Amino acid sequence: MTGKPPLAHTIHKNCTHLGWDRAIEPVRVARSGDRLLFECKDAAGGHFDASSTADDIGSLNPDAANPVTGPVFVEGAEPGDALKIRIDTLHPSGFGWTAILPGFGLLADQFGEPALKLWDYDVSGNRPAVFSDIAKVPLRPFIGTVGLAPAASGRHSVIPPRRVGGNMDIRDISAGTTLYLPVEVEGALLSIGDTHAAQGDGEVCGTAIESAMDVEVTVEVVKGAALKTPYFETGGPVSRHIDAKGFLATTGIGPDLMAAARDSVSAMIDLLTKTTGMSANDAYMLCSVCGDLRISEIVDAPNWVVSFYFPKLVLG
Amino acid sequence: MTGKPPLAHTIHKNCTHLGWDRAIEPVRVARSGDRLLFECKDAAGGHFDASSTADDIGSLNPDAANPVTGPVFVEGAEPGDALKIRIDTLHPSGFGWTAILPGFGLLADQFGEPALKLWDYDVSGNRPAVFSDIAKVPLRPFIGTVGLAPAASGRHSVIPPRRVGGNMDIRDISAGTTLYLPVEVEGALLSIGDTHAAQGDGEVCGTAIESAMDVEVTVEVVKGAALKTPYFETGGPVSRHIDAKGFLATTGIGPDLMAAARDSVSAMIDLLTKTTGMSANDAYMLCSVCGDLRISEIVDAPNWVVSFYFPKLVLG
Repeated sequence: MTGKPPLAHTIHKNCTHLGWDRAIEPVRVARSGDRLLFECKDAAGGHFDASSTADDIGSLNPDAANPVTGPVFVEGAEPGDALKIRIDTLHPSGFGWTAILPGFGLLADQFGEPALKLWDYDVSGNRPAVFSDIAKVPLRPFIGTVGLAPAASGRHSVIPPRRVGGNMDIRDISAGTTLYLPVEVEGALLSIGDTHAAQGDGEVCGTAIESAMDVEVTVEVVKGAALKTPYFETGGPVSRHIDAKGFLATTGIGPDLMAAARDSVSAMIDLLTKTTGMSANDAYMLCSVCGDLRISEIVDAPNWVVSFYFPKLVLG
Repeated sequence: MTGKPPLAHTIHKNCTHLGWDRAIEPVRVARSGDRLLFECKDAAGGHFDASSTADDIGSLNPDAANPVTGPVFVEGAEPGDALKIRIDTLHPSGFGWTAILPGFGLLADQFGEPALKLWDYDVSGNRPAVFSDIAKVPLRPFIGTVGLAPAASGRHSVIPPRRVGGNMDIRDISAGTTLYLPVEVEGALLSIGDTHAAQGDGEVCGTAIESAMDVEVTVEVVKGAALKTPYFETGGPVSRHIDAKGFLATTGIGPDLMAAARDSVSAMIDLLTKTTGMSANDAYMLCSVCGDLRISEIVDAPNWVVSFYFPKLVLG
């Protein structure tokens, strides 16, 4: 990597916080152009390990969910600017988990029992991760949570994403992508966490392949960008690791996008359980880590079409 | 094409109907396994030609929109079965149009003036279609409307899609895809129309590259399939014709998926007009023919993320 500047700062994983708050003291001060390394915990803060079972879900503390590493004060960043964040490299840990957490997820009303799937994956990313001998999921590590402090004072939950980013769970905020976030406070106050080894659009069961990682990014202040919402630019194609055999796609059709999304995912779980014999819990978790929710049409009033695309490659 | 069976029927474009109605007399009777050719008009029934301008939009008759060719009675199809429809080949006409129709489209409140873009494209599909010297759109012809007669008696508008299919505008119902539709009436009563030369997920301005085409399909009855909604299987990857240079993606974040979808498309129009100088009308139409609406996350309550992906390839 000729010309790659040295790391200006490493933000260690003991520097995490829960929730967004402009009053949290920055742990580092960076300059525009600096390359930074964030050591990120997984969304459960390391609660699970290779010996965990679904019984360990009950002892998860929801108030401790989704710790993020930071915040970093970026010199020169002011409200109305954008913080440009180039994702340079992710260093996955090799251990991951996917869970059905009661009360959480798109079909929480239909999946009330806790379930846990552990992943022991190849950190080089060359081999797909094996899912219960029924599927192989190509990896594409990315950042689930990357955000800035909101202007509004007080502590804000880390679960919902906001205009300043946060828990956006966009599967393409991966190596090579450049993200632009609206700055609302002086210094921007950047934090990163909730890294994932793979996920489809929607994160339908509520969890991805949740996995601790170290993340290298380069930050830059863009003066006066005046963004309304975050945007990003990918470094290349986003589905070629998984699209070679095409897709099975189920639909939901009706006047409510949420209901249509739920119908499309339910239909895919029905189809997968029927055709492969896998359990509904497994199908739901597998859909979350590799299938995509797309809005096929949103103009033929009063009924919209949401489609759930499942990549056939993962079934072999 | 060794082994391709001869066409069992050609359904000519004089055999079109407006709206879905189980009482419409079938124009052909097909057997399960038959290969059929449907001559399809465009969504405006041929209203526009190479000399048309936006002034011709006012004389469009909305009651004559979206004529479909058919219906075809398929022997053996009964309520509770599925009709399997393999899309074999599309023969595009080379002429197409994209319009902003006042009162129609995702941002109808922001785009009140009619606009019309004409396309004269390469029917081989080897060359992208040129958009006002500012963009080149790779073609991927597909069927916008493919559906069966609903069980409920009476005439049903052809605009909204339903459980039995219809105007689904799913961009991947293209050559090589196999579609499964729930049958609600004896003989299924299949009709096809509203062919498109290219479109992104969402069809955000309300129109695609609307274009008359002949379509070859093979139909088969699947007994007792008991589908709730349509599903399909693609013959291979769905975005490789357009993804080589990656994507620009804008976001909408909030508790309402429709508002988030609108915000993401508005943000992309702002970004394209600012960075390329194209007009907002052009950006809106271009987004509709090549950009994709994806639901990035739908679980981090109370805020969801909808992202609009614009392929950088089309800008050169």
